[in-house]
Amino acid sequence: MNISELRLGLIGGTGEEGRGLALRWAIAGARVSIGSRSLERAKTVADELNQTLAAHTAVPISFGENRDVIAQSDLALLTVPFAHAASTLEAHRNDFREGSILIDITVPVSFEQGRVRYVELPEGSASEHLKARLPENIPLVAAFKTEPAHLLAELDARLDCDSFVASDSKEAKATVMEAIGFIEGLRAVDAGTLYSARTLERMTVLAIGINRRKKIKTARYRIVGL
Amino acid sequence: MNISELRLGLIGGTGEEGRGLALRWAIAGARVSIGSRSLERAKTVADELNQTLAAHTAVPISFGENRDVIAQSDLALLTVPFAHAASTLEAHRNDFREGSILIDITVPVSFEQGRVRYVELPEGSASEHLKARLPENIPLVAAFKTEPAHLLAELDARLDCDSFVASDSKEAKATVMEAIGFIEGLRAVDAGTLYSARTLERMTVLAIGINRRKKIKTARYRIVGL
Repeated sequence: MNISELRLGLIGGTGEEGRGLALRWAIAGARVSIGSRSLERAKTVADELNQTLAAHTAVPISFGENRDVIAQSDLALLTVPFAHAASTLEAHRNDFREGSILIDITVPVSFEQGRVRYVELPEGSASEHLKARLPENIPLVAAFKTEPAHLLAELDARLDCDSFVASDSKEAKATVMEAIGFIEGLRAVDAGTLYSARTLERMTVLAIGINRRKKIKTARYRIVGL
Repeated sequence: MNISELRLGLIGGTGEEGRGLALRWAIAGARVSIGSRSLERAKTVADELNQTLAAHTAVPISFGENRDVIAQSDLALLTVPFAHAASTLEAHRNDFREGSILIDITVPVSFEQGRVRYVELPEGSASEHLKARLPENIPLVAAFKTEPAHLLAELDARLDCDSFVASDSKEAKATVMEAIGFIEGLRAVDAGTLYSARTLERMTVLAIGINRRKKIKTARYRIVGL
């Protein structure tokens, strides 16, 4: 893989997690584009991110409306909150080009009486729920479920953790794992089929609980013994 | 906590996970007793473990029938396979003494067409399923869900990982976390209420999958950023 030819598009990439991934992958050398429903909003965020990137060696981040960004991406990342994920995908299901891959980073979480809870879905996980809403020929890869958004966006912070990747498409999973390998401090770990998203999404809920009890924002995972 | 006064009983402690925990805690200085339905079987395993312990400084491991071991324990560990966990608890629900704590280490797993799967339970997790079968006054603590049994029993191997502990009883959880702190190489991590067992048990399934893909037996977890 030639990272400088990899086109990464962030669908709804204006939030904290989208921003962090955009920055990290731009520094890794990829061609990153921020997508939004609003072209103006996408431009504003891309401009901000490019200011941050001025201190680094990186290709400038571009921007566009979600549909254009999706159409021009090798890897499209779904970085909207889970509540808007299905409707966003349904609106854009025909915008993906043959050969592109969707990376789903969403985690369905609720807060009940101050307690963080995983939102159970009939398909078993957000990734499986969303996969059912994509055209058959677009593989979905679950990734970045457990990395703290906060930390991704803090460029001075070392990530120093594992990045679990799950998919029913071995080929798409291998591509995403290779692309993740270019991000400093992340080790891509093959988490198996999309079924594993049920675990990965719950691990985020566990990490949020650990963060709250410890009053930190940095809890993340590493596999020992690998 | 004076670890040398802590009485640990392993219910069905003759399997691999039970043996490993018995050895590790005996070396940590606790008073460990192996329980089994068969007194003879308990004696055989205790004798074997004490031979292993000869090279270490440790109080000899004792043995007994499950009911006697339960009645004399501060911490009773349920180390039977999940398939026998509920029936074992139901047979012994009146043997627990007031003030003792049950540690549940079971994980309900099945292998379907060569794939490892988590067995869904109506209560959400094995720990919640078993809690419903214990007398109200005996707190249940989920622990040792993610540590590889194989590794626990290999005394030369450094554990070097986190030990997630979950319970609806804060007091019981604190006691178990403190006791775990005496085991070399384990860091006890507060995983919240028993609800978190849903995640911890699935994490074991994920680790088994990682082990199989990598042809190792050692995958375990560490929280980074704590």
